Amino acid sequence: MTAYKFTYFNAKALGESIRMLFHYGGVEFVDDRVNFEDWPKIKPSTPFGQLPVLEVDGKKVVQSSAIARYLAKKFGLAGKDDWEALQIDSTVETIHDLRTKIAAHYYENNAESKAEKLKIAKEMVPFYVNKLDEQVKKNGGYFVGGKLSWAEFVFVGLLEYLNYTQGCDIIAKAENLKALRDTVLAIPSIKTWVAKRPKTEF
Amino acid sequence: MTAYKFTYFNAKALGESIRMLFHYGGVEFVDDRVNFEDWPKIKPSTPFGQLPVLEVDGKKVVQSSAIARYLAKKFGLAGKDDWEALQIDSTVETIHDLRTKIAAHYYENNAESKAEKLKIAKEMVPFYVNKLDEQVKKNGGYFVGGKLSWAEFVFVGLLEYLNYTQGCDIIAKAENLKALRDTVLAIPSIKTWVAKRPKTEF
Repeated sequence: MTAYKFTYFNAKALGESIRMLFHYGGVEFVDDRVNFEDWPKIKPSTPFGQLPVLEVDGKKVVQSSAIARYLAKKFGLAGKDDWEALQIDSTVETIHDLRTKIAAHYYENNAESKAEKLKIAKEMVPFYVNKLDEQVKKNGGYFVGGKLSWAEFVFVGLLEYLNYTQGCDIIAKAENLKALRDTVLAIPSIKTWVAKRPKTEF
Repeated sequence: MTAYKFTYFNAKALGESIRMLFHYGGVEFVDDRVNFEDWPKIKPSTPFGQLPVLEVDGKKVVQSSAIARYLAKKFGLAGKDDWEALQIDSTVETIHDLRTKIAAHYYENNAESKAEKLKIAKEMVPFYVNKLDEQVKKNGGYFVGGKLSWAEFVFVGLLEYLNYTQGCDIIAKAENLKALRDTVLAIPSIKTWVAKRPKTEF
C-alpha cells in the first residue's frame, strides 16, 4: 500500500482540497500540520521553500494543483476525456486567478497600494464569482459536464480562506455556487471529514 | 480536421509555449494576435476578460496552462504515466511562481511597494532559478524523466518575457537551464518557427 504524508499549515487554504480528495477517495494519509511559528525551522527542508508537500512512499512532490490533479485521476475526478480534463483544469486556474486578486491586497504591506488593490478586488471578485456561478448554472450544478470533479474540491476547499482574506462571504449572492458548496459538503465522506477536522480560522 | 484559432497579444509571454506546441506537433492553427491598443474592444468578448483564448472548432477555452497541457497530451509531451505528469505539472506551477515574483514588482504602481517587491524578487528569482537548474542537472538536461515535455516549452516560451520584466538575463549563471533552452531552440520545427515568428520585445 502506498504511504502518503501530506504536509501543510494548520489551515484549510491551499491544503484543504487535497485533504478532501483523500477522504473522498477513502485513502489513508498522514495529515501533517505545521504551526505557523514552526514554519521557519521546517521551510529549508521543503523542495522549494513552500507548502504543501506530499510524500508518496517517501518521495516529495510539491504544488497544490499538481498534487490535487494527481489524486483526482486516481479517484475518477479528472474528466472522462482530454476535453473534460481541459475544462476542469481551466476552471481551477480561474479559481486561482480569483484567489490571486484577493491575495494581492491581503498580503500587501504598503497602505496606499493595499487600498488600490482592494478596490480592484472589490470589482474583480464579483466578476469572477458571477462568471463561475453562470458556469455552474449551465453545467447542471457542477463546474464541468454535470458531475463532480476536483474543481469542486478546489473551490470548496479554498472558500473559507477566500472569504476570510476578502473579509466577506464572496458567494453571498451566487445561488449556484452556494448550491454547489452544499452538494460537496453533503457527500458522506466529506461530511464526516468536515465534522471531525481540526477547527481553523481559514 | 479540427480548426484551431489561438488568440493572444502580439507578444510571447503566456502565449508562446502554446504556439511552440502547435509547431512542434505540426498542427495548423490561426495565430491571432491582438494589438494592445485594440484590447479594450476585444476584452468583453472573451470568456473571462483575459487572453489567451483557444478556439477548438469554434468552442472557446481559456487559461494558458490548461491549454498547453491539453495540446501536450496530443503530442506525447505530458508524461508516460500519472507520476511523470505530476512532476511536469508541478514544474510548470513552479515556473509560474517564479513569474509571479517578477510580475509583483513589474506591475506595481506604487513606488515604495515596487521597490520592496523588487528586493524580494532579486532574492527569490535566483532561488527559483537555482532550484530549477539543479532539477535539470539531475534529470539529464530536461525538467522531468530525461526527456522533452511541455514544461520545457512553458519555460522557454516565457523566458524572454521573464528577462524583460526582471530587467536581466535571469539564467545568465544557470548552465543547465541555458543548455535546456538551446536544446528546445534546436528542435527543427521550433527553429523554423522562431526564425519566422513576428518579432516582439517579450
